[in-house]
Amino acid sequence: MTQQINEKTFTAALIIIGNEILTGRTQDTNTNWLGQQLLEQGVRLMEVRIIPDIEDAIIKTVNELRSEVDYVLTTGGIGPTHDDITAACIAKAFGKKLKENDDAYKILLNHYGESDFTDARRKMAMIPEGATLINNPVSGAPGFNLENVYVMAGVPKIMQAMYDHVIEMIEVGAPVLSNTVSCGLPESVVAPDLTALQAEYTTIEIGSYPHYRGGIMGLSIVLRGTNEDILNSATRKVVTIIRSHGEEPRALNVRDEKIFNINEGS
Amino acid sequence: MTQQINEKTFTAALIIIGNEILTGRTQDTNTNWLGQQLLEQGVRLMEVRIIPDIEDAIIKTVNELRSEVDYVLTTGGIGPTHDDITAACIAKAFGKKLKENDDAYKILLNHYGESDFTDARRKMAMIPEGATLINNPVSGAPGFNLENVYVMAGVPKIMQAMYDHVIEMIEVGAPVLSNTVSCGLPESVVAPDLTALQAEYTTIEIGSYPHYRGGIMGLSIVLRGTNEDILNSATRKVVTIIRSHGEEPRALNVRDEKIFNINEGS
Repeated sequence: MTQQINEKTFTAALIIIGNEILTGRTQDTNTNWLGQQLLEQGVRLMEVRIIPDIEDAIIKTVNELRSEVDYVLTTGGIGPTHDDITAACIAKAFGKKLKENDDAYKILLNHYGESDFTDARRKMAMIPEGATLINNPVSGAPGFNLENVYVMAGVPKIMQAMYDHVIEMIEVGAPVLSNTVSCGLPESVVAPDLTALQAEYTTIEIGSYPHYRGGIMGLSIVLRGTNEDILNSATRKVVTIIRSHGEEPRALNVRDEKIFNINEGS
Repeated sequence: MTQQINEKTFTAALIIIGNEILTGRTQDTNTNWLGQQLLEQGVRLMEVRIIPDIEDAIIKTVNELRSEVDYVLTTGGIGPTHDDITAACIAKAFGKKLKENDDAYKILLNHYGESDFTDARRKMAMIPEGATLINNPVSGAPGFNLENVYVMAGVPKIMQAMYDHVIEMIEVGAPVLSNTVSCGLPESVVAPDLTALQAEYTTIEIGSYPHYRGGIMGLSIVLRGTNEDILNSATRKVVTIIRSHGEEPRALNVRDEKIFNINEGS
């Protein structure tokens, strides 16, 4: 078959800063949410690193990842307490001064009011020099952007609101589309066919994921790519593969259900 | 106060191998579960990296982390399909051959039976030379250990069963204990006191986590350490701090609730 060249996509890495995730106190949900959102904007999340509130770890991780991907997002550590050290660490990572940002100061003063604007809250106006603020419509204290690094809060509701601003600041790509087909076959039965299919469709990522629900084993096959025609063509072949093993596949989340009515090649 | 030296703890890193987590298809829960379990065994999870099913990424990540921590755990990518490349990558990372492991072969043959032991399933017997197998009582296919790297399945139920064996293979440390106290104060109100407290208690990790539940803001303060007396002493001071701001704290998860009845210093 003739393969078209994929439209442009970008790459991102996410750094989750926080002992609360590493100790199992808090279940991370930001990876899942951001992974989905970014794909829809044509940005592939290539790596997530969950690291503790330790200066050396933050600086090293930011500096490693910002040269490897188009966009680095960070979450966590921008509050008013002693363990909120992200802004200071990002400043050090870039060799910038951390100083009181006039705009952040005004936002915080306006949010809290003169009498409640304590020193601890004022600390949240300390932003690396040269950074652009990221709006926080939920709780006032802004995030910030420096080069390709976007610093957000860790609380999901606040992070999600900040992301709305981040997505306006970055160049986005062609949405990465997906089809998911499921069946009751063991993974190993379809493995050889999927290997061959992956070799044929180099611009489509094919993943297979076994699952157990209510004691019944099942298999989801997920296909992803930016070109809908190629994606649907590969999905049609997955349907054919499953039928060739005597099972009728189910469309879990398929862009064009006609795939199931058409035989391969027609 | 006199501080005792902490009992020994170990460090670990977790590598989660799988596009399904990065694309947001699957919500990771292994970090949360392992983070908690490891702490109880005196092993601190220092970093988690979620990486795609890409050979270079797996090899680089394994080789970076295995020199940085006592134990590296990996999850994912040990099934029978084309995207299950973990065993081959670990072999390359260590400069070892990947070959059919006799014991793994027997386990798989026994699990599937002669007639269902397909080539794809046989692939799961391919293990780096010199590795020790990790039992999989759930689905047969074993994980393996090479030096300080422990390779487990990604499906939580299977990973958890494998972890039971891993924990018998590693040297464990002094359990890391925790107390959690909550209150309705804004984080910024207690921030200066917590900063001073953290400076005083260098062997206790103090974290503060704001949360919104049902529209009401709250704050959880989590203290962790291996020495129960020091931990309770620091927690008692947190109680005193909260009371000094006119609030009555709640014990969310405290090892000794008497802390709430005793004034600081008594």
